[in-house]
Order: sequence, then C-alpha cells, then structure tokens
Amino acid sequence: MAETIIRIDLGSSPYDNDMIHNRWHPDIPMVATVKPGDDFIVECFDWTGGQIKNDDSAADVRDVDLSQVHFLSGPIGVEGAEPGDLLVVDFLDIGAFPQSQWGFNGFFSKNNGGGFLTEHFPEAQKSIWDFEGMFTKSRHVPGVRFPGLIHPGLIGCLPSRDMLQTWNTREKALFDTNPERVPALATLPYGPTAHMGRLKGDDAAAAGAEGARTVPPREHGGNCDIKDLSRGAKVFFPVYVPGAGLSVGDLHFSQGDGEITFCGAIEMAGWIHMKVELIKGGMAKFGIKNPIFKPSKIKPTYDDYLIFEGISVDEGGVQHYLDVHIAYRQACLNAIEYLTKFGFTRAQAYAVLGTAPVQGHISGVVDIPNACATLWLPTGIFEFDINPGSDGPKKFLDGLIDVPLAPDL
Amino acid sequence: MAETIIRIDLGSSPYDNDMIHNRWHPDIPMVATVKPGDDFIVECFDWTGGQIKNDDSAADVRDVDLSQVHFLSGPIGVEGAEPGDLLVVDFLDIGAFPQSQWGFNGFFSKNNGGGFLTEHFPEAQKSIWDFEGMFTKSRHVPGVRFPGLIHPGLIGCLPSRDMLQTWNTREKALFDTNPERVPALATLPYGPTAHMGRLKGDDAAAAGAEGARTVPPREHGGNCDIKDLSRGAKVFFPVYVPGAGLSVGDLHFSQGDGEITFCGAIEMAGWIHMKVELIKGGMAKFGIKNPIFKPSKIKPTYDDYLIFEGISVDEGGVQHYLDVHIAYRQACLNAIEYLTKFGFTRAQAYAVLGTAPVQGHISGVVDIPNACATLWLPTGIFEFDINPGSDGPKKFLDGLIDVPLAPDL
Amino acid sequence: MAETIIRIDLGSSPYDNDMIHNRWHPDIPMVATVKPGDDFIVECFDWTGGQIKNDDSAADVRDVDLSQVHFLSGPIGVEGAEPGDLLVVDFLDIGAFPQSQWGFNGFFSKNNGGGFLTEHFPEAQKSIWDFEGMFTKSRHVPGVRFPGLIHPGLIGCLPSRDMLQTWNTREKALFDTNPERVPALATLPYGPTAHMGRLKGDDAAAAGAEGARTVPPREHGGNCDIKDLSRGAKVFFPVYVPGAGLSVGDLHFSQGDGEITFCGAIEMAGWIHMKVELIKGGMAKFGIKNPIFKPSKIKPTYDDYLIFEGISVDEGGVQHYLDVHIAYRQACLNAIEYLTKFGFTRAQAYAVLGTAPVQGHISGVVDIPNACATLWLPTGIFEFDINPGSDGPKKFLDGLIDVPLAPDL
Amino acid sequence: MAETIIRIDLGSSPYDNDMIHNRWHPDIPMVATVKPGDDFIVECFDWTGGQIKNDDSAADVRDVDLSQVHFLSGPIGVEGAEPGDLLVVDFLDIGAFPQSQWGFNGFFSKNNGGGFLTEHFPEAQKSIWDFEGMFTKSRHVPGVRFPGLIHPGLIGCLPSRDMLQTWNTREKALFDTNPERVPALATLPYGPTAHMGRLKGDDAAAAGAEGARTVPPREHGGNCDIKDLSRGAKVFFPVYVPGAGLSVGDLHFSQGDGEITFCGAIEMAGWIHMKVELIKGGMAKFGIKNPIFKPSKIKPTYDDYLIFEGISVDEGGVQHYLDVHIAYRQACLNAIEYLTKFGFTRAQAYAVLGTAPVQGHISGVVDIPNACATLWLPTGIFEFDINPGSDGPKKFLDGLIDVPLAPDL
Repeated sequence: MAETIIRIDLGSSPYDNDMIHNRWHPDIPMVATVKPGDDFIVECFDWTGGQIKNDDSAADVRDVDLSQVHFLSGPIGVEGAEPGDLLVVDFLDIGAFPQSQWGFNGFFSKNNGGGFLTEHFPEAQKSIWDFEGMFTKSRHVPGVRFPGLIHPGLIGCLPSRDMLQTWNTREKALFDTNPERVPALATLPYGPTAHMGRLKGDDAAAAGAEGARTVPPREHGGNCDIKDLSRGAKVFFPVYVPGAGLSVGDLHFSQGDGEITFCGAIEMAGWIHMKVELIKGGMAKFGIKNPIFKPSKIKPTYDDYLIFEGISVDEGGVQHYLDVHIAYRQACLNAIEYLTKFGFTRAQAYAVLGTAPVQGHISGVVDIPNACATLWLPTGIFEFDINPGSDGPKKFLDGLIDVPLAPDL
Repeated sequence: MAETIIRIDLGSSPYDNDMIHNRWHPDIPMVATVKPGDDFIVECFDWTGGQIKNDDSAADVRDVDLSQVHFLSGPIGVEGAEPGDLLVVDFLDIGAFPQSQWGFNGFFSKNNGGGFLTEHFPEAQKSIWDFEGMFTKSRHVPGVRFPGLIHPGLIGCLPSRDMLQTWNTREKALFDTNPERVPALATLPYGPTAHMGRLKGDDAAAAGAEGARTVPPREHGGNCDIKDLSRGAKVFFPVYVPGAGLSVGDLHFSQGDGEITFCGAIEMAGWIHMKVELIKGGMAKFGIKNPIFKPSKIKPTYDDYLIFEGISVDEGGVQHYLDVHIAYRQACLNAIEYLTKFGFTRAQAYAVLGTAPVQGHISGVVDIPNACATLWLPTGIFEFDINPGSDGPKKFLDGLIDVPLAPDL
Repeated sequence: MAETIIRIDLGSSPYDNDMIHNRWHPDIPMVATVKPGDDFIVECFDWTGGQIKNDDSAADVRDVDLSQVHFLSGPIGVEGAEPGDLLVVDFLDIGAFPQSQWGFNGFFSKNNGGGFLTEHFPEAQKSIWDFEGMFTKSRHVPGVRFPGLIHPGLIGCLPSRDMLQTWNTREKALFDTNPERVPALATLPYGPTAHMGRLKGDDAAAAGAEGARTVPPREHGGNCDIKDLSRGAKVFFPVYVPGAGLSVGDLHFSQGDGEITFCGAIEMAGWIHMKVELIKGGMAKFGIKNPIFKPSKIKPTYDDYLIFEGISVDEGGVQHYLDVHIAYRQACLNAIEYLTKFGFTRAQAYAVLGTAPVQGHISGVVDIPNACATLWLPTGIFEFDINPGSDGPKKFLDGLIDVPLAPDL
Repeated sequence: MAETIIRIDLGSSPYDNDMIHNRWHPDIPMVATVKPGDDFIVECFDWTGGQIKNDDSAADVRDVDLSQVHFLSGPIGVEGAEPGDLLVVDFLDIGAFPQSQWGFNGFFSKNNGGGFLTEHFPEAQKSIWDFEGMFTKSRHVPGVRFPGLIHPGLIGCLPSRDMLQTWNTREKALFDTNPERVPALATLPYGPTAHMGRLKGDDAAAAGAEGARTVPPREHGGNCDIKDLSRGAKVFFPVYVPGAGLSVGDLHFSQGDGEITFCGAIEMAGWIHMKVELIKGGMAKFGIKNPIFKPSKIKPTYDDYLIFEGISVDEGGVQHYLDVHIAYRQACLNAIEYLTKFGFTRAQAYAVLGTAPVQGHISGVVDIPNACATLWLPTGIFEFDINPGSDGPKKFLDGLIDVPLAPDL
C-alpha cells in the first residue's frame, strides 16, 4: 500500500496539525516531498475542519466560521518541479474514513455566506448523508439514493508571489465596488484565523495577513468544485514555485454541477491517493493558463435524464443580457418546482440538485438577449418514476420529513 | 412513409412560401393540422433562408441581413390543444436533403451581429462542412471529422397575446438601457422584413410590426440552440394558444454547447420527422414554465475528453462576480490557445468549438467571486492525438489552409 | 449526394437484376468499380428477395424457399485492391426506402430452417415491425419500442478459388456426418436457384453448381449477423481476389446478439452508404484472418439492463461440457419465462430477444463442466417497468394479441 | 462503518478458519446471521487460499492443489429466508486489503487444470498485477494499465439436498463418458481436501464426501465468473434452504468475458460489503431458475473498441456445427495474433484477454454451420495506439519481458 504522507486526527483541531493550512501563500513550507512517479496518500479534514456535526440541527451550519475555511493538507513538494512545468496528478482513489461514513450538505444563512438560491432559501438548513459503500442516502431527503462521484473540491499548487499579488489586487478592486454587500463580493485576506502550516511566529502573521483566501477557484485550480475531477481523473496543474507545493482538501462524496447549495456538495473528511508526474516546461508548450484534465473512466454513468431549461429573465420578469448565471438559476428553480409535484419539499429538491450528479450545461450564449442554460437531472437517482406522463405526477412523499432549518438568531 | 405536411423549394425565396414565417405572433394562421398520435414530416429552410452559399468566400456572412431570420416552418395546429396543455413532441428523425449535403458555420462581423468571441474574431469568416452520411468534415478545417448530432435550433409553440406583450416589454426595457450598442442588446420587432406566413395585407403589417423576433429563446422554447434537442429526443412544450401552433426551423447538423460562433452551428436546410401527443393541463400538473425534455438514446457518444477550465476573470485581468459567461469565454479561449499548438489556426479552433459536440458545464457558481466553467472537448473528433504528453505537442497542420475571411467594407 | 451505383426495383424479382447474386464465387463479374476514397450508395433487397409480405399471416415464412437466399448487391470492384490487402469500409449511413418503412421477423418451421429455439417454437410465426423515423414498433408485439441499430447482416469480399474450395470441402465433410438431419448441418452448393449476377450461360451454371451458399459467416465475413456492424462502424475486410469484389445485403433494422430467431432480425430492404479505403498488404501486416472492426460512435445506448444467466445443462437436465450454445439457450429461455410474467406470450418474448439490441455475453468458459452465458435485456425498450420488485410482476398485456402462426401443412 | 461479520488472517491457513468452506452442502452450519435490510462486510481469501505468491516464478501455479478450491466465506444466514424466496444482494463495495495490493493471473498446466487455450499454452505461466488505487498494471505485461472492474467470481446460496443430488448425478454422468480425460470433464466430490466450515467430525467427513465441488456455476449462481457482477451490481439469488446460506469468495480485481486464462482473472484476497433484502416467493413470481442481476452504475466505461471475429472452424480447419466455444476461441486467437504485431508476446496477449474488461459476444448462432463470436478489446487499456492504420503496426515492446513460465516436471 502506498505511504500516507499526511495524517490527520478527526478528534483534534486542524489548527493543531502543522501539515494543514487554510490560506494560499508562497512562503508556506512544504510538509513532505515526493518524486515524479511516486504515489502516496493524503488525509484531509472536511472543509470546515469539523465544525459541522452528524445530527439533526442546522445550528452549526448557521453559526459556521467561514473565515477559517478551507483546511487543506499540504503543501507537498515535488522533486524537480519548477515554475512553468505542468504537474500531472492522477487521482488513483478517494474515500471516506471507515469510522466516518457520512457527509453533510447545507444552505448557509444569507447573513453568513448565502448560496446560489439564497433569496429563496435565506436561512440555514442541513442534511446528513450516510454512505453505504459506494452509495449514499439521507435520512432528511427520502426517495433518492446514488453512487458517489467522489472528488476533491479544492486542489492546486502554491502561487508565486507575483500571482498572489495579482489575486489580491483584482479581488480587492471588486470588493471595493460594494464593500457593504451581504454576502460579500469577495473574501479578502484575514489574518486572525489564518493557519499557515509550518510557518510560525512573525513570518506566519505576515503571510497570514496577505495570504489569499481559499474560497474562489483561480489560475492554479484551487476551489474549482468541479464534480468531474473525480477519482480516476488525471489533472495537469500549472507550477508557480520551485517544488510545486501541491495542497488538497474539501473532499466531496458527490455534487451537482455548480455546487449550488454552497455548503455545498456532500462534504466529508477522508483520504486521497495520488500519483504525480511532471511535464517540464509544459505551460508554454501547451499554452496552459488554467488546469486542464481528463475525466475518470470509472464513475457513475446515467443515460436517462430529465432536462430543464432556463433563460436569463429573472424571477421578477426582468430581462438580462446573456447572463448564464441567471439562466441556470431559472433552470434550477424550474427543476425544484417540478420535484415538489412528486412530494419533495423545496428544500429537499434544492438539496438534491446540490448533491446528486446533475449536469449544468451552458446551452446557448449568443441568442441575444437570452442565455439558455440546462439542468440535467438523472432519473435513476430516484427510487420512483419522476418522468412526466399523461396521468400527471404522483406524490410519493408525504412531506412529514424535511431538511432541518435553524432560523437566524 | 409519413406525410410531408410542409414542403419547401430551396431554389425560391422563403418569402414566396406561405407556410414559412419569421416572427412570433398569435395571429399567424395555422398552415396544417394534425391529431395527437400523428407523425409527419416538415421541411425547413436554413435559418437565413439561403443567404449563405457553399463557396469559399465569407462575404455572404459579412453581408447577411439578420432582420430576416429565422425562417420557420409552420405553425402547425394540433387538434384539441389548449392553453395550459403540454405538447409532447418526439423527434423521430432529422436529415439534410439528398441534393443539399452540406452546411455552413461562420463568425459574424462585430458590426453585424458579432458573437461570443467577437472581440477576438471581429470580422466575418465562414467554413463549409460537407456531409458523408452521418459524418461531416470541412475543407476549411482539416483534421477533424465527426458524426452529426442533428437537431433543430429553433422550435416552439405560438405565444399568446399576453406572452407576446411580456416579451416585447422586457426586451425593449433592456434595449433602452444602451440603444446605441453594437451589437445591440436585444432585437426588437421590425416590420419591413417580417414574413407572417398566411397572414396578409393590413393584418400582416400590424402583426409584423409587433411580432417578436425569433432570435432569443423564451418561455416557449424558441431559439434555444440546445444541441441535445437532437433526433431521438422527446420534448414537452407549453401551449399558449388553441391548437398550439408548433413551428420549427434553424436545423443544425452539429453544434457545441453555447453555439459560440453564433453563425452558428453547422447550419443546414433539411427535414424533420415528428410525432405529437398532448398532456392535458400538463403545465399546471407538472409546474412547467419552460420546456423540459428527455435526451435521445441514439446520438454520438464519447467517453474521452480533454477538459479546459475558465474563471470569471476577463482577458484584461479584471475580476467579475460569479459571471459564468466570462468564465466560459476563458475556457473557450484556453481551448483555442491549446489547439493552436497542434497546428490549428485560431479561427479553425474557434470553428471546432462552435460545431463539434463539445460540452460546456457550469462547474462552480458559488465560490465568490469566481464562477468556474469547463469546456469538454471530445478527443475522438480529431484525426490525430491531441492529448498532452511529456514530449510536447506535435504540429499536425501546416497552417496553409484557413477559414476564409471577408474584411469589413 | 453520393452516387447510387447499384439500384433495385422492389416490384421486380431479384433474379431479373444482374447486379444481384446469391452465391459466393470468384467468377462473378464486378458490376461497378470504385476508387479508394470514394463514397457511394448501394441498394439492397431484403434477404429473401421479397418473399415475405407486410401482412398478418405467417404462411410466407413457413413456405419460404431458403435455397434462394441471400440476395446480395455487388460485387463491387475497388481499383488497386489485391489479394492480401485489407479493404477498409466505413458504413456512413444505412436506411429503409421511404416507400417501404417496415421489416419482418419470424421463426422458421423446424421442417424448413428452424432456429435457435426450434424445439420450443417448431412452427412458423411472423411479426411485422413498422418504422417511425429512427424507431420501430410492432402491431404483433405491443409494449416495446426502440431505436434502430441498423446494420447489414451480410457483407464481404469474393473468395478466391482456393478459399471457395476450402469452404466447400469442410462444410461437405460436416454435412456428411448426418446427411438426413432436419434442419441440415450445412447448406451445400445448389445450382437450380443460384443467381450468379452477370455471369451467364454455361459459366453461370458451372459456377452456380459450386458457388458457396451465403448462409454461414466465413473468413471473409459474410453472413456474420453481428448487430454491432452498424451504421457508423468501420470494418477491415480481407481481400482474396483482384478488385476485392465487395457484396452486401441482408439489411437489418435491429437485432439481438445471436439473431436467435433466424428469420431473423428485423429484416428489411434498403440502402447503404459506404466509403472504401485500402491498406496494402494489411492481412500480413496485422495478422488478419477474419474481419476486424471498430463500432459506431452513433448508436442506441442503454445503461440499464436486466441480465439473465444460463449454464450448459440442457432443458432435460443433461450436463454438457462447456457448451456456450446451450448456456445461451438457457439464458434466453430464462428471459422468455420471465417476460411471460409481465403479460407477453412466449412467442412475443422470443421475438423481442431476436429483434431488440439485447447483448449475449460469453461470461465463463473455463469452469468445467458448465459454460455460463448471459443475456442482457435493456429495460428501456419496454413501455412499462419490467424490473423485479418486492410486490411481484404486474401483467401489463392481456394476451389478446400474439404473433401470427402458420401451422405446418 | 458496517460490521465485518467474517474475518480472515492472510497469514494462516483457510483450513484453520471455521467461517470458511470449500464445498457446497446443505449441512454446513451458518457462521453468522443477518436481517433483511442489513449491510455488512465479509473478508475473503483468494480462491486458492494463498497458494500463489507475489513473485516471478510460475512454479506455484504449476503445482497448485486444485482439489482445495475455492475457499468461500460463509454461509451467512438471513432471517426469514425460505426456499423459493429471492435473496436480493447489493454489492455496495469491494476491495483488496491495504497490506495486499496485488493479484495474480496464470495459465494452468494442461496436466493440472488447463484452460481455454491450453493446447496453445500447455505449461504454467503467471503474471503479477499491482494495484494503484482503482488501477492495475503488471511488471510482466508492460504497455497496459486499466481501472478495476472488481467483482466476486463466486457467490450463491447453499443448495438443498435435492439440488445437491441433481448436481452430483448429472456431473458424474458426464464425467463417466470419458473418465481418463485430462483435463477432466468434471470435478467430482472429493473428501480428503474438503473444508466443511463448522461441520466437524463424522458429519464433516460424510458431507465432505458428497459435497459438490465449487468449480462450475450452477442454478444457485456459484462460480459464474461473470465480470459484470461487479461492485455496485444488484443480484437476485434463488433460495433453497431455510436461512438462505449465502457464501462468497474468489474475488477478482478485473477479468475479461470468459475468464479464459482459468487461473483466472486478476485473483485477489479482499473484502466485500453487501446488503441483503428478500422477495418472498420470488422464484415462482418471476419464474426464476438461475440468478438474475442488474449491472453497476459505477464501473469502468469504454466507448472505443477493436473487435475480432471468430467462427466455428477450428485451428485445424475442421468445420463444427454452431459451436460458440470454438468460435470464441478463434476470436481470441485472432486477437492474440494481432497483438503480437505490436510487440506483445503471445503469453502477454493471452494474459491481457484474461484480465482486462474485454467483452465476448455471442454474435450469431443460427447461420449454419458457423457460429460467430466477437471479442471486444477496449483500446483505452493500452498505453499506445493499437488501431490498424495504413502504415502498419509499430512494435512498441521489445519482447525482453515476458510472463514467467514453469515447465512441467
């Protein structure tokens, strides 16, 4: 079995583990070194570092401290890696810990993070998903069961100093256009809760004060939340610092395109088994700015979908110009409305779209003024038939069970 | 063989055919009537009504009269259809005419329509795609060949008077925010080139002056340009007027998600074989606002993709807030840059993304401030290996052939 | 559109068309010549040359003259082809004629051909399948509807004189082990009904008397009845005579693995659009004895199957040694028994297995003494749910409709 | 995590573990009891009980004691199960032990077991396959790497006394037709090496003397070696004794259709996570004689294959009557010959066909006298391009590495 080069203890705080960090900064020291051709295992906290519990209250989702996230394992040094190389990472396998066979999905309060449909679901809610081998189901969302499309939500190499500066500058510029907005337009560096791994003392404080937050995806990959970066995939990451500095975390048992619930996918702690190679000078050779990847040959497959369309006219009837974000929101709302006809509550339907391997396609982006987005719902995840028939929908669920909600205080 | 209920003559103008129309209006008379359970064939002009020729000059693309489009076949009345019903349409088959085994793809001039990457490709270009049975290839884009994912870009039922009013109002409001913009923010009603089918005289003029343009997708479906509405699919359309009034046109031999080149997919004239059924009161029963559909069981399938990521930081390095449109543009630009390393010109690479069955996924839309979009390029459409390897890319094409360009006059 | 190089008239006898033949012999003259790189269309009779009608009586199936089959279109000469080459054939498209949108499936009488389950279905039966675009359904087999996996049952190049001699010798040897058997062990040359194309007079008589029958698949391909040689596939055929001499016929709209009903698939007249290339000396270079092929990228796809196992213990409980033929027969009988629980008659279930794209897998062939075969039934071809559930099967059909039977006279 | 109800120690003999047995007999006592709805984990020895080592000598394959196999874990009692029920088993997950990340494939000597191509590979050979997460590769077979299609080769419920009698009778009858044959026609009961689990003393001796050997698949399933019974599948097993008595073993990391190498797939020790349900009276309700199953939604998928045909003319040119076994053998030999052109040794090519997820289809079984079988080779398992091109094959391997062989003594 491959060596486990980063270990964690679910019973202790990630702040007590110096192989964990929660900001991006070139000064964070490598915690392990591997060679091209090596395969190895890395253990990961869930993205919140254990703030969310396996229970039936959403209070922890409401009260989460988002300045702490995401807790990443690494950085891992790769011998011979230099800026301009491509780091080729094979995701050989990913899993949950035997003693922790569950994950969570939630909607953040609009006052603390929000989400894609935060205007429709403004208060914190949480569902717990139990794993049965390769499958999952939730006591809060009856009627669905599906195999996992397990993937890391967040993975990438350390930025160089220049790249970090670019990130901070452009995000601050956006933030400053509306600094009072809730949720904020961007998450800026924040020293008090920074965890800089093995960087200590003044160095850690200085780096923590300018380290980029882990929330958005960026040129290095980062928090892409791409469900298809699943176990079995092969990813080509840009390298910016000597040794590459690969960090990973935010494991997901499953997720729909968009991770629309924000908190988020089916979030879990676990381990990832990876293998690394290098393509020297690969960024220039292949013209690479962002990571590219090849999908897994071993993943859940569906051939039957029910597909919902949305256009960029918002809920108030206002016309927007080729706005795919709004179009996808309409497609999601259309799917939620549809699912309620079969007995799901709106929150359950929202949770399904956030957790199951739904596809979100950018279907049309040139037919002014309407963008057209489609949401692909795999019918095979449901334990009953949700296809439209001439005799109308049947209510399979009685509505007695719902996703726990914690009102804002 | 099923009856052909609408016939066209490729050698004559669509304006001379009263079973064709190019605006949406409830007063356009039905040109044929079918019963639930019937299957029938409808012939269609290409969306421009024959303005674009099978030659090696892009002048026709540059000079196209976009106020004429799209030429639709219909409307077809369905016995018993009433507002609130769902019209279930099976696309039994779709094809080109034996004497017209070709299609076109183009980029409009920024001064006349533009497109998704119009800042990068501001002048008119055109590629011709020849069909070989179920396959296509282009003399202007060597190195690619793929089977067709044949579909109608535009299909839907007539709007009611109320719905038409809603469309015109909201689109005018958007247009008025920047009426001088090129390309325009919206295409407003325009009487002079309206073709109102069998509506004649003053009635035609009045309806033409307020008839909605066919450019955007809307609640009824319309110009969705969803590549997956392909032959073999089943679609559930909302009905707004007695008899439904189904119209169809803008046939595509193949297209990528987004139809990013705008002119557009591989555009063709041809025929569509459909079957219709009704779900009475289906809109309310299933909570339907936009069409829903089930994909075809018989379509080109690929399991090997190269996937490009893009985030919502624009070409100038400016940070945008969760803008999927910009993120997808970056993913497309990343793919174009990559393909040039294998010998494609930038225009050829753009044409590939517009015509081949590439997928565009909304991968992340909550990780502020960056949306993350992915472009899935099927490697099997290429006649050589475009995977990234440790020995760098090989230039398979010498650049002597390119997509014809017609400079702005 | 590609040129149609062989045309047929469905209203006249194939014996009157000198571009048709029904035996394999090197002396049959080429009826057309094409060049490598050409694509062209060939029209084909159904395999019986029109003996079976679109009606509700199986008398024609019972009385069929099997000495006439199969009527093939060709041979087509390919410029530059020489013995030892590989002829690469792309199946660009295949279809039925507009005026003949139907096919037939039948079971031969045990006294005239028989079939895989002839002991269980000893008398002639026939079902008619109507085409609706890419789909088919039968008035004799309610409850199923599926898209076509259209393919030629029979295609290959002319044998050399040596190869013909080999075929005749080895088949005669087998026949002679039990010459009285009904059905016969092999179909030997038979001059009286031979149709030798453009070979006339004494030459035709001599060749007809020794021409190999078209019934079995052989080294050149021939009557392989491989459902996956479908439109979109690419096949590499051995060449034995100068000019190759490609002939094709026995078009099928759909078929299950094994073509177990023998008469056979959904048999149809129609056309095939092909493209040819050569690999010079390819047989030796690649060590080719039988054709190899690559499957189509555009074919019906299913991901949900119900799979039946069979082992090589026959219906009488007798143990056979690793006999896959018997194992597959048991799997088929198990599937038939299962389907009767949902209301199908045994004949309807047999017809489904013969016509729908069921898969037959050789699952285990080493675990003495039992071979294990599996039959994969795609659940999506049924208009109701045939999965096993805890509440038992539901009879969806009332048995009033069955497959017409014509008793032996 | 689910409870592990059967544990093994890889360092000790399976004969020392009373939760293991190697014969089928109704008197073997249950070693654990579960309830419908339970999920649980069972650990399994490799089928030989550890006789084959991870080294570079095939002596252990040559000298294997086949009278000992297969070592099964169980039987497991299911509360409420009665004869005539269907036991529904979900394979939730399957894996190798962390400390045992490898498997073996071998060809038995013709004098000790043989195999599908034993005339061509008469001496013992062995390849070792290392696991890298979900993938495997072999130091003895360079150039291939593929994800696992992990499955139990052997699983089923205990036979009743009547069924056991049926098995023994029919297999003895076959054996007696040629008792001197090597390999034998059937494996008959053999007391000396029987391991009857918790049955002890005279009872064990009596049962061991009549217990059915585990080699062939039978009505209960048993040693089906169906690669598609993979993790994620759902199987419906007939129940013959009160409590069902489910036993399982012979885990495979991957296998091709037919398990043609006999020793066998990629054989491994490991664990299986299962869930059980009951369908009361299901055998009669659904007309079930052999198990039926639904395939996994999460398994390796390939869409590009190279397909080889074979017909029932044997290697000596002798014609056989519709013999699928011979036809599949020819298809396999054709594939082996082809692969040698790219540099594989014949033994390596044979090992690939035995281990990789190749498909074996029964393509035609009615076209007398030739059966036609096809072998589907997924091109994506190879690290280089094995497609036939006009420039002939390229030798990617130099032949310096081969599969170790141990000559008969």
